Amino acid sequence: MATEKWVFMVTAQTPTNIAVIKYWGKRDEVRILPVNDSISVTLDPDHLCTVTTVAVSPAFDRDRMWLNGKEISLSGSRYQNCLREIRGRAGDVEDMEKGIKIRKKDWEKLNLHIASHNNFPTAAGLASSAAGFACLVFSLAKLMNVDEDPSHLSAIARQGSGSACRSLFGGFVKWTMGSKEDGSDSVAVQLADEKHWDDLVIIIAVVSSRQKETSSTSGMRESVETSLLLQHRAKEVVPKRILQMEEAIKNRDFASFTQLTCTDSNQFHAVCLDTSPPIFYMNDTSHRIISLVEKWNRSEGTPQVKF
Amino acid sequence: MATEKWVFMVTAQTPTNIAVIKYWGKRDEVRILPVNDSISVTLDPDHLCTVTTVAVSPAFDRDRMWLNGKEISLSGSRYQNCLREIRGRAGDVEDMEKGIKIRKKDWEKLNLHIASHNNFPTAAGLASSAAGFACLVFSLAKLMNVDEDPSHLSAIARQGSGSACRSLFGGFVKWTMGSKEDGSDSVAVQLADEKHWDDLVIIIAVVSSRQKETSSTSGMRESVETSLLLQHRAKEVVPKRILQMEEAIKNRDFASFTQLTCTDSNQFHAVCLDTSPPIFYMNDTSHRIISLVEKWNRSEGTPQVKF
Repeated sequence: MATEKWVFMVTAQTPTNIAVIKYWGKRDEVRILPVNDSISVTLDPDHLCTVTTVAVSPAFDRDRMWLNGKEISLSGSRYQNCLREIRGRAGDVEDMEKGIKIRKKDWEKLNLHIASHNNFPTAAGLASSAAGFACLVFSLAKLMNVDEDPSHLSAIARQGSGSACRSLFGGFVKWTMGSKEDGSDSVAVQLADEKHWDDLVIIIAVVSSRQKETSSTSGMRESVETSLLLQHRAKEVVPKRILQMEEAIKNRDFASFTQLTCTDSNQFHAVCLDTSPPIFYMNDTSHRIISLVEKWNRSEGTPQVKF
Repeated sequence: MATEKWVFMVTAQTPTNIAVIKYWGKRDEVRILPVNDSISVTLDPDHLCTVTTVAVSPAFDRDRMWLNGKEISLSGSRYQNCLREIRGRAGDVEDMEKGIKIRKKDWEKLNLHIASHNNFPTAAGLASSAAGFACLVFSLAKLMNVDEDPSHLSAIARQGSGSACRSLFGGFVKWTMGSKEDGSDSVAVQLADEKHWDDLVIIIAVVSSRQKETSSTSGMRESVETSLLLQHRAKEVVPKRILQMEEAIKNRDFASFTQLTCTDSNQFHAVCLDTSPPIFYMNDTSHRIISLVEKWNRSEGTPQVKF
């Protein structure tokens, strides 16, 4: 097989997700295990998304990846963990038409080329790594004929980027923090599918397309180390909010859904501010949008729109 | 006496104070009792200050007040509480030269004219009401020959504006929250006088001279009612910080003093953000100043300046 020059590939498209109860803070940096549950809405796959093509060929001499057309290193532990976990679960693949036959044990020796594109700004607070790692894990799982349900795959995507686990489902998704040390119970589950509440509209206002000054990874680490409010939020505040949010989603209760979303978004930004040095993920434009939304809702008496 | 047309007056000048451990949240709205202790630095009286002249005359038919040249109402409970408390402690006053003699019991019948000026923007986050009420109470106490020590006067100024109690002392001042229901132990005490650390420089950067969108009074009320982080801050975080700050001031430990000040300022803004609807007291210019300060300090290795 090693002398043949065939290429076998799979392309997948994965949307980003917007958290309505926020993930902020890890209890385990290596396995990417969070300090609290979170809930998100997965966007329409035709809108903000990542498209990834994964290819395997005996002609490839090493694993390589291109992000938005530019080659990036795969040496980081996040990529390595995802590749190792997926390869460990690979199955037999056969394409009769092309005469390709890859056996389970071949995957360890075969190299991959990965091309990934985001159709929205990278690292600008729009969960590009969530869509990216979800799409990577999903497309690799297809390519390698991995026989795992989406929740198991979500635990792999989680090791690439925490919130990626939530992008493996459509609709409303909960990432349960889990309690096991190995992280095997820290997985995403679908609360309701995309048809459950299909007149819900999410508007993304890009207030700046510049990269964030602080990455989520280092921001979270600094918050965990320095914010005296983060643990209180994680232990006392979020568990109750998760239950309320599940109820709001179940009942399509817009008032409660939006109230919880805004309150939790504000608290996430509050914890960022309580970090030393403080992290600012909002600017004057964000402030003006929030004030406008608040005034609009107050004048209407019932929530029309939320941030 | 009532037919004479004399006027007797006193002028006082009181600086504003900048909290280094913040006061945010009342446990009693009427008596103005806080949810935590706070510590501030009183500015040089020649810089940001209020100048107030209080005058009494049998010719005045009612109490009147002018703030920055514009007449304002004294009917609010904050003014009424201060006037009542001071009048209740008034003593005999005699000005031999002018032939004025006011007995203790006369004060109830005599009316006051009060003229107050701030030399800095009002309601822009610079504690104009702190300097204002401290100056009002101090000048009235002088006028009426009130025989009380500054801590007792501070409990009266507190009923005008919480942080006003701290402006009755120079240097470093602690407002102890107290535990009594009547608020009599919620007073300011001087931790160290203005000579203790006289090479400490405070720079006030006015990032906007517009009035705040949310007054401190309504902001605090909304934070107490809606922020799930405020009580945790008040009960778990601030008590330890107060002890650390007292130690830092005692030892003139600039690194520790500035670290605590910044961290607490950020946490105060965090609680504001955690309020529904969120309160923004910082803008992009504030963010840029903070980032600049953080970068400068990091490049120097030791704190040079703090916000």
